[in-house]
Amino acid sequence: MTRTAQTFAPPVMEARRWLEGVSFPPDRPLINVSQAAPVDPPPDGLRRAIAEFALTEDAAHLYGPVLGNPELRAALATEISEHYCADMDPGRIAITSGCNQAFAAALSALTGEGDEVILPTPWYFNHKMWLDMSGVRAVPLATGPGLLPDPDRAAALITERTRAITLVTPNNPGGVEYPAELVAALFDLARDRGLALIVDETYRDFDSRSGPPHDLFSRPGWDETLVHLYSFSKAYRLTGHRVGAMATSPARLAQIEKFLDTVAICPGQIGQHAALWGIRNLGQWLAGERAEILDRRAAILREMPKLEARGWRLLGLGAYFAYLEHPFDMRSDDLARHLVAEAGILLLPGTMFMPASDPAGARQLRVAFANLDPTGIGTLFKRLQALSI
Amino acid sequence: MTRTAQTFAPPVMEARRWLEGVSFPPDRPLINVSQAAPVDPPPDGLRRAIAEFALTEDAAHLYGPVLGNPELRAALATEISEHYCADMDPGRIAITSGCNQAFAAALSALTGEGDEVILPTPWYFNHKMWLDMSGVRAVPLATGPGLLPDPDRAAALITERTRAITLVTPNNPGGVEYPAELVAALFDLARDRGLALIVDETYRDFDSRSGPPHDLFSRPGWDETLVHLYSFSKAYRLTGHRVGAMATSPARLAQIEKFLDTVAICPGQIGQHAALWGIRNLGQWLAGERAEILDRRAAILREMPKLEARGWRLLGLGAYFAYLEHPFDMRSDDLARHLVAEAGILLLPGTMFMPASDPAGARQLRVAFANLDPTGIGTLFKRLQALSI
Repeated sequence: MTRTAQTFAPPVMEARRWLEGVSFPPDRPLINVSQAAPVDPPPDGLRRAIAEFALTEDAAHLYGPVLGNPELRAALATEISEHYCADMDPGRIAITSGCNQAFAAALSALTGEGDEVILPTPWYFNHKMWLDMSGVRAVPLATGPGLLPDPDRAAALITERTRAITLVTPNNPGGVEYPAELVAALFDLARDRGLALIVDETYRDFDSRSGPPHDLFSRPGWDETLVHLYSFSKAYRLTGHRVGAMATSPARLAQIEKFLDTVAICPGQIGQHAALWGIRNLGQWLAGERAEILDRRAAILREMPKLEARGWRLLGLGAYFAYLEHPFDMRSDDLARHLVAEAGILLLPGTMFMPASDPAGARQLRVAFANLDPTGIGTLFKRLQALSI
Repeated sequence: MTRTAQTFAPPVMEARRWLEGVSFPPDRPLINVSQAAPVDPPPDGLRRAIAEFALTEDAAHLYGPVLGNPELRAALATEISEHYCADMDPGRIAITSGCNQAFAAALSALTGEGDEVILPTPWYFNHKMWLDMSGVRAVPLATGPGLLPDPDRAAALITERTRAITLVTPNNPGGVEYPAELVAALFDLARDRGLALIVDETYRDFDSRSGPPHDLFSRPGWDETLVHLYSFSKAYRLTGHRVGAMATSPARLAQIEKFLDTVAICPGQIGQHAALWGIRNLGQWLAGERAEILDRRAAILREMPKLEARGWRLLGLGAYFAYLEHPFDMRSDDLARHLVAEAGILLLPGTMFMPASDPAGARQLRVAFANLDPTGIGTLFKRLQALSI
């Protein structure tokens, strides 16, 4: 059996299949909090910029450089320099066809068959899937209360086959924003042990904190240890264009270029142009988007006490996610399926973010709340409160 | 050292680097026949369709199904049914972010570490690169005169680790169009030995023959053996949009879905819309494009005798490619670099398409002629004739 055959099916697609044959009455429509993606299109200005580009620039339709267009690499370097108060140069940036691809490309440069990568749990399922498919062992690092990984526990998991530690901050699925000191401690650990530290910051634009989320880019020689991953999908609502990015050393990018050439040839031109236009024009708009997400996050905090009164617990909250512990005597994967017909709610169970050996997943649920306004969040919580299992 | 570190660098990018620091006088501009890609944009109607789609359809900017949009899968199924006089159904089609990705996805469903795939030589370098990066051994099948693989020689290479035979027809880099009987014989061999037959038909729209290029899709149970790969990049000049396709069994597509979810999430929406619009509206236009390519092919046949008089040989011709044997006492990789400054020609040496152990590559050169009109082809051949090494 191939490694791919042994890999689990894509969770979001699997969850979508639970909807088949279920009807939702008009007075209780489906609340879909399963996928962490905008459901609204990008702003009109960006749509017009895409249309104009397609009509007037031949380059919109032709191959470009494997590692992305120089203008976008330069613009992102400048943007990162500002966001992190650092000094990023374009030669350390690659543009990818989405952030999942950036992770896969990073792994191809870092690991071989039988190597190991440490992932705090709950983990992002596509990271686990890629490790499984590429013959690399995902070593789970249980996080416990607060969902924060402990550097000493991480250190204890390092073997001679360990090649990297992967973080997601703000976290998917847990929502939690890793303190800068914790990120720094894990960076130090990785550097001291000769590992890479992969930090997926797909949701960084919705961090509730102000100022740089960490200081890694300011450290001399950061690029020998750090592989930073980013996505334009959430910031500018470009999920359908597949455009992400990464930052690491030029030597590692030379390896990554081989992978990207073979799996993608180049990132899509329209998506790259849209990302460039977004960086240049949507800073204010994105600040408004962040404020809106933070409002929704606040709505969840307001609603939680009612759920807590029924035995629920909020384990993590931030970016697009609330990560909940449910009070029922039912496994979360059964519960999630049950919620579709019984409550008109589609969400993902903790079991999809955990090794089967960890019983915690069966108690947990991920709510990707970004597409619900405070009223919608109120409705969601009412339905959860009313549940009797 | 990782498998990726042991993989060679992307040849097209490497060749591009040979241009650095070389200047080309106005009366002898560079002739770039290194990359097999259109350099002109798609027709205006298609550009307007893309712009309209971006402006008016929210779905242009949002995630879609991992295996591609149902409308495009259905339209391609119909198109394949017509092209091959067969009965294709959409459930056997997946849309990918380019045809390279389709190959990588197919391999993830077919192979594991240490498995083997038979590739006729000269091979398509991205196939070889992906096999190297995924820990699968590329087993070269030397083709000899006519560049056609011999089924008996293929059979002799099969071991218990062999999982697939991969063909490219019309061939890149060789240009040669595989006879339907040969494709059928290799299909029979693969089926009888329990292997997959991967057939990359990226260049099928420029085949000089009329009628279906093979009858595999009409065979009962074809999808258990065949993995068909296709690209929209050449047909509709969509290289910058990254959209390809594959056809195989639903069971295999369920595995492929895992890979695509993790490496791409979904194909870009703009590219999918453009491909759909192309299928619906560009049939006549594409017939004209094919006629133009066949004209250029004819120009090469007219020019060849002058080169043959100087010791050159035409080994293969078709689709975008002329595959040549040069007469010089110089390795083709040195010769190719030499041609940049000495003749203003950028092309790829046979060594990039061959295992290092096969001395034939050092005698061979690939000319990707699709972007040269007959006058340009005349100029190219004059420069080659005038060479003295």
